[in-house]
Amino acid sequence: MNPGDRVRVDRADRTYEGVLLPSSTDDHLVVKLEGGYNVGVDRADADVELLAEDVYEIDGTDAADDTSGSEIEFDDDLPTISLISTGGTIASTVDYRTGAVTAQFDAEDVLRAVPDLAGRANYRGRVVANILSENMEPPIWQDLARAVADEIEAGADGVVVMHGTDTMQYSASALAFMLETPVPIVFTGSQRSADRPSSDNVMNAVSAVEAAKSDCAEVLVCMHASENDDVCALHRGTRVRKNHTSRRDAFETVGAEPLGKVDYETEEIEFRGDYRERDAVDLDLSDGLENDVELLKFTPGMDPAFLDVVEGSAGVVIEGTGLGHVHTDLIPRIEALIDDGTTVVMTSQCLEGRVCDRVYDTGRDLLEAGVIEAGDTLPGTAKVKLMWALANSERVEEAMQTSLAGELQERSVPWE
Amino acid sequence: MNPGDRVRVDRADRTYEGVLLPSSTDDHLVVKLEGGYNVGVDRADADVELLAEDVYEIDGTDAADDTSGSEIEFDDDLPTISLISTGGTIASTVDYRTGAVTAQFDAEDVLRAVPDLAGRANYRGRVVANILSENMEPPIWQDLARAVADEIEAGADGVVVMHGTDTMQYSASALAFMLETPVPIVFTGSQRSADRPSSDNVMNAVSAVEAAKSDCAEVLVCMHASENDDVCALHRGTRVRKNHTSRRDAFETVGAEPLGKVDYETEEIEFRGDYRERDAVDLDLSDGLENDVELLKFTPGMDPAFLDVVEGSAGVVIEGTGLGHVHTDLIPRIEALIDDGTTVVMTSQCLEGRVCDRVYDTGRDLLEAGVIEAGDTLPGTAKVKLMWALANSERVEEAMQTSLAGELQERSVPWE
Repeated sequence: MNPGDRVRVDRADRTYEGVLLPSSTDDHLVVKLEGGYNVGVDRADADVELLAEDVYEIDGTDAADDTSGSEIEFDDDLPTISLISTGGTIASTVDYRTGAVTAQFDAEDVLRAVPDLAGRANYRGRVVANILSENMEPPIWQDLARAVADEIEAGADGVVVMHGTDTMQYSASALAFMLETPVPIVFTGSQRSADRPSSDNVMNAVSAVEAAKSDCAEVLVCMHASENDDVCALHRGTRVRKNHTSRRDAFETVGAEPLGKVDYETEEIEFRGDYRERDAVDLDLSDGLENDVELLKFTPGMDPAFLDVVEGSAGVVIEGTGLGHVHTDLIPRIEALIDDGTTVVMTSQCLEGRVCDRVYDTGRDLLEAGVIEAGDTLPGTAKVKLMWALANSERVEEAMQTSLAGELQERSVPWE
Repeated sequence: MNPGDRVRVDRADRTYEGVLLPSSTDDHLVVKLEGGYNVGVDRADADVELLAEDVYEIDGTDAADDTSGSEIEFDDDLPTISLISTGGTIASTVDYRTGAVTAQFDAEDVLRAVPDLAGRANYRGRVVANILSENMEPPIWQDLARAVADEIEAGADGVVVMHGTDTMQYSASALAFMLETPVPIVFTGSQRSADRPSSDNVMNAVSAVEAAKSDCAEVLVCMHASENDDVCALHRGTRVRKNHTSRRDAFETVGAEPLGKVDYETEEIEFRGDYRERDAVDLDLSDGLENDVELLKFTPGMDPAFLDVVEGSAGVVIEGTGLGHVHTDLIPRIEALIDDGTTVVMTSQCLEGRVCDRVYDTGRDLLEAGVIEAGDTLPGTAKVKLMWALANSERVEEAMQTSLAGELQERSVPWE
């Protein structure tokens, strides 16, 4: 089977029919569905049937290899920025303007869609996925991390990842743990598509490119800092959260100020506090992930059977109440999980502030049961980190209590 | 068996040993454990064994009946405020100052603990539970609602509920749905106990009493508005959230400004916007709750087996991403749940902003599957509301999309 063929894919309890698209790895199939969106399917889990050959003409051959093909002249004086698309509103905008329906996009497509990008950099275009970000899955985080590493190795001076906003914080965290990077990796997206007068896609894309040219070699999220079209905030990927369903300034750094900002008019970038500088470390990719990790939010009256679902799993992050609590009745079950080999990490649904299980009886009982405190790591970030730590670290407990990528801050509010 | 006896209680996979305390209902046992905290146990689920008679002297006989016994003179010129304790740091403070180890407390205990309360009201003291609030359970919400209704019927001009901060927002929501009230019902608690120099217990208790004397007959949460000891915020119970693990101003109204504030120095109370005024409605108690309702937070890579746990349950609130999404693969399972009779309600983990499932394909598919949108209702509040609506309303879908107690706001940010 080849890209452009019409196929049926059977996976567990779902069946997809659509056009096979180029995929960046051999392990995954990407299928374009009727509705226009694409799904990624793990080849190992899927039965694929050819329905018709060559029903659709695909530009280029392999999304991973084809980063050339641009007619735009290369400018030696400009840095090279790699634009990686995973889908979402900002990428569907690009589709909308170019009329393109393939998963392929090159530098020209991007410049046609956002002409303001011209003259700021030489661009390489690359597609890793074309999905709404609620469909993002850990295997695609791995594809994305590998693609980013490839681009950096190929000489990119910075990477911009275009991503749906729904789960951008999870993907940014995943890349922050998987990659040691000598250049900026900047996620951006769009809360309103290009056909709306209030679209944020141009300013976010332009600001993200400026951030990717900066000296801050971290995984950042670049989105509107206010409802105005004046400043984009640069958030550390591990501490950012989509805190509003629809506002353009939905993203906020939790428990700190944003790491920096981009002034859209003057193009000036300002950072506050410490960050890892460009070329401070060599590129390093640790792309292992333990997929058998869950996040469980505790609420009063919760059915303890939720803990049965995670029996035998590698790890569980609990989103407890207050300083990191659950109903006392759940503690023996949690202890049994831990005795059985599951790593259990405590975070707080308060979102701001640190977990501290030494203050009240419930917390002390949880610590005695073997629960690991995640400090002020956000619950979603803690889940991603635990997936990474279980696959990459010999000392998971120590890893969860150490800041690896800015996800865990020193105590900011004195406890007394 | 009588209060003061030493007992062993066997329930499912847990065993408690401790002293039997007076309980406000016949359906529940309250047992004081070694650590000093009390657990409530449903009699129907428990085997109780008498270990020793009368090991502890209990003041008074039945917490529900004994609201007299105060030696403080009744002042005809002052309103009567009922102080109801459920436990938590603020109530354990009272224990600490008085040295009391029973679940009993009367007006004198309260005044000894917080002398600044004197002269502001005539007080009635009453204990519904003495638990850390992570152990709060829906049946205790019902006990609490009935106790509050009793107090209002007995002539209280306002009610202050002392509650642990961990799950205060859930309990406040529960009472907001269960009670139509002609007087203020004000929850308060403490983030730092009385033995700490930074304790917030006195200012919160005093401000809550002032709020309970006010004209606002709603369920409110009264806690520090800032890190200073100057102003307490009055939050609508259904829109408040503990947003910080340890700060004294941890509680915030989400998606709006707080309903009002109490100036601690001048004792002035200010409300903004509309609220239900004192005596606008007659007391009405609808204390039914459907307990078979869960909250499920979606994150990337979530095991679909979590949906199996809720198979056959009465209701599920999903905390989706963005405008109210989950992975597309979960939609057929959700549809099967709904077809099977489970009510499924969508909220957003963004916390701010409205769910709107008409914008993207995923959302439209969820609506077609029969998912009910909860607007900008907070996920925890939506869970409590669904428990209430399933037990009290013929038209659950309509109830979930109508503001019953300020939990659902008119669109505040225009979508365009």
